[in-house]
Amino acid sequence: MTLDPIDLTAQLVRCPSVTPHEAGALEVLREVLEGGGFSCTRVDRNGTPNLFARFGEKAAGRTFGFNGHTDVVPVGDEASWTRPPFSGEIADGILWGRGATDMKSGVAAFVAAAVDYVTQTPPTDGAIVIAITGDEEGVATDGTVALLDWMRAEGETMDVCIVGEPTCPDAFGDMMKIGRRGSLNARITARGVQGHAAYPHRAANPIPVLAALVDALSRHSLDQGTAHFDPSTLVVTSFDTGNLATNVIPAQCSAMLNIRFNDAHTGAELSDWLRAKVARACEGTGITMDVEISISGESFVTLPGPFVDTVRQAVEAETGRAPVLSTSGGTSDARFVKNLCPVVEFGVVGKSMHQVDEHVAVDDITALKNVYSRAIRAYFDEV
Amino acid sequence: MTLDPIDLTAQLVRCPSVTPHEAGALEVLREVLEGGGFSCTRVDRNGTPNLFARFGEKAAGRTFGFNGHTDVVPVGDEASWTRPPFSGEIADGILWGRGATDMKSGVAAFVAAAVDYVTQTPPTDGAIVIAITGDEEGVATDGTVALLDWMRAEGETMDVCIVGEPTCPDAFGDMMKIGRRGSLNARITARGVQGHAAYPHRAANPIPVLAALVDALSRHSLDQGTAHFDPSTLVVTSFDTGNLATNVIPAQCSAMLNIRFNDAHTGAELSDWLRAKVARACEGTGITMDVEISISGESFVTLPGPFVDTVRQAVEAETGRAPVLSTSGGTSDARFVKNLCPVVEFGVVGKSMHQVDEHVAVDDITALKNVYSRAIRAYFDEV
Ligand SMILES: [Zn+2]
Ligand SMILES: [Zn+2]
Repeated sequence: MTLDPIDLTAQLVRCPSVTPHEAGALEVLREVLEGGGFSCTRVDRNGTPNLFARFGEKAAGRTFGFNGHTDVVPVGDEASWTRPPFSGEIADGILWGRGATDMKSGVAAFVAAAVDYVTQTPPTDGAIVIAITGDEEGVATDGTVALLDWMRAEGETMDVCIVGEPTCPDAFGDMMKIGRRGSLNARITARGVQGHAAYPHRAANPIPVLAALVDALSRHSLDQGTAHFDPSTLVVTSFDTGNLATNVIPAQCSAMLNIRFNDAHTGAELSDWLRAKVARACEGTGITMDVEISISGESFVTLPGPFVDTVRQAVEAETGRAPVLSTSGGTSDARFVKNLCPVVEFGVVGKSMHQVDEHVAVDDITALKNVYSRAIRAYFDEV
Repeated sequence: MTLDPIDLTAQLVRCPSVTPHEAGALEVLREVLEGGGFSCTRVDRNGTPNLFARFGEKAAGRTFGFNGHTDVVPVGDEASWTRPPFSGEIADGILWGRGATDMKSGVAAFVAAAVDYVTQTPPTDGAIVIAITGDEEGVATDGTVALLDWMRAEGETMDVCIVGEPTCPDAFGDMMKIGRRGSLNARITARGVQGHAAYPHRAANPIPVLAALVDALSRHSLDQGTAHFDPSTLVVTSFDTGNLATNVIPAQCSAMLNIRFNDAHTGAELSDWLRAKVARACEGTGITMDVEISISGESFVTLPGPFVDTVRQAVEAETGRAPVLSTSGGTSDARFVKNLCPVVEFGVVGKSMHQVDEHVAVDDITALKNVYSRAIRAYFDEV
């Protein structure tokens, strides 16, 4: 059996699976996987659609895992698209549509590679497990997390895992991800005393105090980077007051910030640091500040070793490129999978993800399937 | 003839003349003034109601002027009022209602004083002119400005003028105003390049650059005050971004500020200074900023001299208090009148103005009428 990952990508793109809609995408995959001998289970939780598939015995000697998502971000301004965003049209070697890059091509490629492998050379003492969610782009509380919770409860496992997110910045094969920075969001609300702009001494204006803090935080260098990570970054993403009256000093304003942090930090340590900075900023000002913090993921890294080498060599053999082992970029569901087993991410060129006219080169889809096939073979041949 | 200014205040409060509604207030005054021998003209412009009244010859030897407004600010949360806001109820020596302080009591007091004076001792070679607008609390473009434009066109004049705004901070007689600071509003819009919070080096975040500017401007001391003025103040009244996405660096944010400036500055000079500060803040940052400035009034002062002395002595004789000669507070229509003649402001205690349960002591209304009567007499007796 040889599955065409290009056609499968196009089928998936034609499902308008904008988070949280399944729109048939997981069912397309279930049919293909069951056709290849996988046993499939829908692991929906709180309305979020998820699909688990296994070929081979539960808790087999070695289990190779794949993780990905079929949901996509909204199309934005549909009128700006050159082609209908869910057409899956192929023209001049390019497949167009929302999700073409992030990450229906990745899902199609690993499903095709897995089905080919098990139908051609079924592993004797091994299994392939595929965990696909319909909510990675949303809040993600009932997506990959629900799949992993269910797997734990059912005694299912993975010994290694590839997440098929787009990882290449410029050319196919130029980067894989072996970790991700952590991410912390904070909202700082500053409160003072409202008053008339003509009598500032009778008021306590929270804006200058918060502005001075924003200035200081923005100038602060968290670190210079570590062995596997770029420097941590702190970005103030919003500063809001909502005061329309030009003659009124407002009682309240707020700022939001996002910290992407490497393995020199933990979310807890950064929370303490931020709260201390905020407390110092308030001293002697008559202004109080509240800080609400949410940590969407700690930093993690799968240190170079056998599994990273397996994937790297597969990429290099297929593309002729030695992929950079990166930990850059945003978060992905790898932050959940890393609690279960070593995880790396590799996929197509991500340039057009989340953009109007998202697209992928069809040759890259084929090559991506080949990389995954090589990685599966190498993993089981190592035994 | 002896007019009761308390009853007249209550009548005016019962007209719900929230800007821009006349609500009968100017017509109440016209009737009283015409009854006292004044000739009255409605000088409405672009729907804004205004009333001009004169007793005596146009361009008489000496003309004593009064200026005020009958419009009031909205009642706010009506449910919070102890008494209906337009009831004009009197209880235990207090008259309650929106406009009781700002400034229907002032208007009633000067109308009563003027009518009493002309009916008891009509000036032989002098005139009294009264210019009352129905838009001081709003945009004020067609209020006192329209009255002054019309007066110029008609050959009408005033040689001195009292504006009847509430001027006393704590006790009746404790302050009169001989000038006002100028007021300048600016909106600064900072523009950068939008991007993803995980890749700050690919974006240009306008927030830290604007925050640093806001911090620097807020710390800046414009001056230490002058002979007749408090120090100028700069207040940042809003800072807004409107970015709800925690993972997006915004392309734009803006700040609003208000400068209240004394006679060490002009609006033009401060505009130049602000634009230069903004330009310097942008240098080397990749951020551009636009500045929109509006000057709602230059600073002005009526230097102590015969007219200031006349009013001060009237206050002191009536109240036993030596009023502070102040230039503090917000703007008033005195900023327009000062282009025509020496102008001072004196009125009741302003504490409750623009508040829920606005009110005035009835004894202060009577005393205010007496102060105005003394000032008129002294002015004409000086001849
Ligand atoms: Zn993705
Ligand atoms: Zn007023």
